[in-house]
Amino acid sequence: MNLAQGIISGDRHSLARAITVVENNAPEGFVLLDELHHRVGRAFRVGITGPPGVGKSSLVDEIAVRLRGQNATVGIVAVDPSSAFTGGALLGDRIRMQKIGLDEGVFIRSMASRGALGGLACTAFEVCDLFDAFGKDYVIVETVGVGQSEVDVARTVDLTLVVLSPESGDSIQAMKSGLMEVADILVVNKADRPGADRLEVELRGALEMGRRHGCDVPQVLKTTATDGQGIETLVVEVHAALKKMEADGSLLKRRRENLEAKLREALRARLEEFFWEDERFTNEFKARIVEVLDGRKSPYRLVDEMAATAFGRK
Amino acid sequence: MNLAQGIISGDRHSLARAITVVENNAPEGFVLLDELHHRVGRAFRVGITGPPGVGKSSLVDEIAVRLRGQNATVGIVAVDPSSAFTGGALLGDRIRMQKIGLDEGVFIRSMASRGALGGLACTAFEVCDLFDAFGKDYVIVETVGVGQSEVDVARTVDLTLVVLSPESGDSIQAMKSGLMEVADILVVNKADRPGADRLEVELRGALEMGRRHGCDVPQVLKTTATDGQGIETLVVEVHAALKKMEADGSLLKRRRENLEAKLREALRARLEEFFWEDERFTNEFKARIVEVLDGRKSPYRLVDEMAATAFGRK
Repeated sequence: MNLAQGIISGDRHSLARAITVVENNAPEGFVLLDELHHRVGRAFRVGITGPPGVGKSSLVDEIAVRLRGQNATVGIVAVDPSSAFTGGALLGDRIRMQKIGLDEGVFIRSMASRGALGGLACTAFEVCDLFDAFGKDYVIVETVGVGQSEVDVARTVDLTLVVLSPESGDSIQAMKSGLMEVADILVVNKADRPGADRLEVELRGALEMGRRHGCDVPQVLKTTATDGQGIETLVVEVHAALKKMEADGSLLKRRRENLEAKLREALRARLEEFFWEDERFTNEFKARIVEVLDGRKSPYRLVDEMAATAFGRK
Repeated sequence: MNLAQGIISGDRHSLARAITVVENNAPEGFVLLDELHHRVGRAFRVGITGPPGVGKSSLVDEIAVRLRGQNATVGIVAVDPSSAFTGGALLGDRIRMQKIGLDEGVFIRSMASRGALGGLACTAFEVCDLFDAFGKDYVIVETVGVGQSEVDVARTVDLTLVVLSPESGDSIQAMKSGLMEVADILVVNKADRPGADRLEVELRGALEMGRRHGCDVPQVLKTTATDGQGIETLVVEVHAALKKMEADGSLLKRRRENLEAKLREALRARLEEFFWEDERFTNEFKARIVEVLDGRKSPYRLVDEMAATAFGRK
């Protein structure tokens, strides 16, 4: 049984191996994703992002438990660009698996990379495709908002929840950082802590301004992941939002935009691969780097000429 | 007078405008860098990185003051991938300019970007080229270590200082994160604070292990940027290290490696530009995205076919 067959037949070991292949950017990954493409498009993809420490993981786990209660299956991709620093990804995985991972209907996978964030989002997209082809009803992509990553990851999902907490500092910061712009639903987690009401009021105030300028503004919902408060409502609202998007065509529109971004990213990588695969180009590159080192040619002109050669322009 | 002439003649306004052109990735930037290439290669490029809050900016300012005392001119590029969040870059610039910026021999420029870190390092390299062509004796690239960025930036400089402080948490963390691997000199800043001696001992202990395994290990120096303690020695050691690298050929070797990394990055960008500049390809891309949307073709295969067309392979 090959990996594609394994995934289609619902074999968890095949799924785990397939994710590793895709993460390692191995050529078989390309073949596999190509084989599975006709099975992709059924799962709802939900992104969950926010600053560190707002309780995203607990929230994701609670959402997964609720979805399982409705017999929906769930795949979780946890993207943490900083965890290569702390080794947190693996440890976190192990702890979380104890809680929900023994349930056959949930599959958690952490991804940490010291590489470019763009590459990480690209891989997250592909892992979502694998979960989708495997037959998961929901794929949750959890990521830490550290600037560009939340925007990149929002481009891989159907709907994005932005999570804040009273302790995550000011809502102003979140607004400045572009986190608000990617939010379809705003979640005030740790709603039992002091300051939660004030944060909610601030967020609603800011959104009101947007509404007056004719913008579509996200809902604000309060949760306390640790005791399950508000999670039921959140899951209902997420489902309702996705159904509405499905009905009014905006889901298709967003998926089309996401796909286009993904294609552009993949094309960039592929063009580069094609260049370095070709001995003629790599030999020319090695030979001509001397021209730059001895000052005969600027790096900018050399690169221009090499790219022109590759495209058959000269 | 065009920008290149302006820079060669030492006009600060031309330099400032040129940096903006290069930062904006404008086509004139390419022409400009090409024109200036023959003037590049004289400046020593020093990278200064470390976790947030260790006092890198104060240290850079103190180093700049000492270098000015020796009549050397200094360009400072402050790269802060996170400052787009806080708007800190501009504010910081203004405060710092009050201290050393009025000196004609020092030029500070902050760069913040929400884009890919790789792109930021690429631009930093180009801004260094501008400072170099302008005639600066030293170019200091200051960056916040947040994972990949310090490695990227180390690839743009001749020598890297990694700065830690007693409060920056454990040295173990720094070692895990790959920060130590890029260090040519380790600086324990805030040496007047409790824990500085312990940090120094820990670092030396860790380095001793490396030395026993036959690795070249960095020096450890202590500074207190706020009262200038240890800065003089640091500047002397930086100069000595650069002179030694110049004499034993390792400076040339490192510049060659840095240049190769830069060429690879620039080539990637150029190949992509060539693709999207060509109407035949963009039209084909727009037309064929439908094949993916309606499930006839996987995104992976489409991208493969488009890249093959661009390279004239089919």
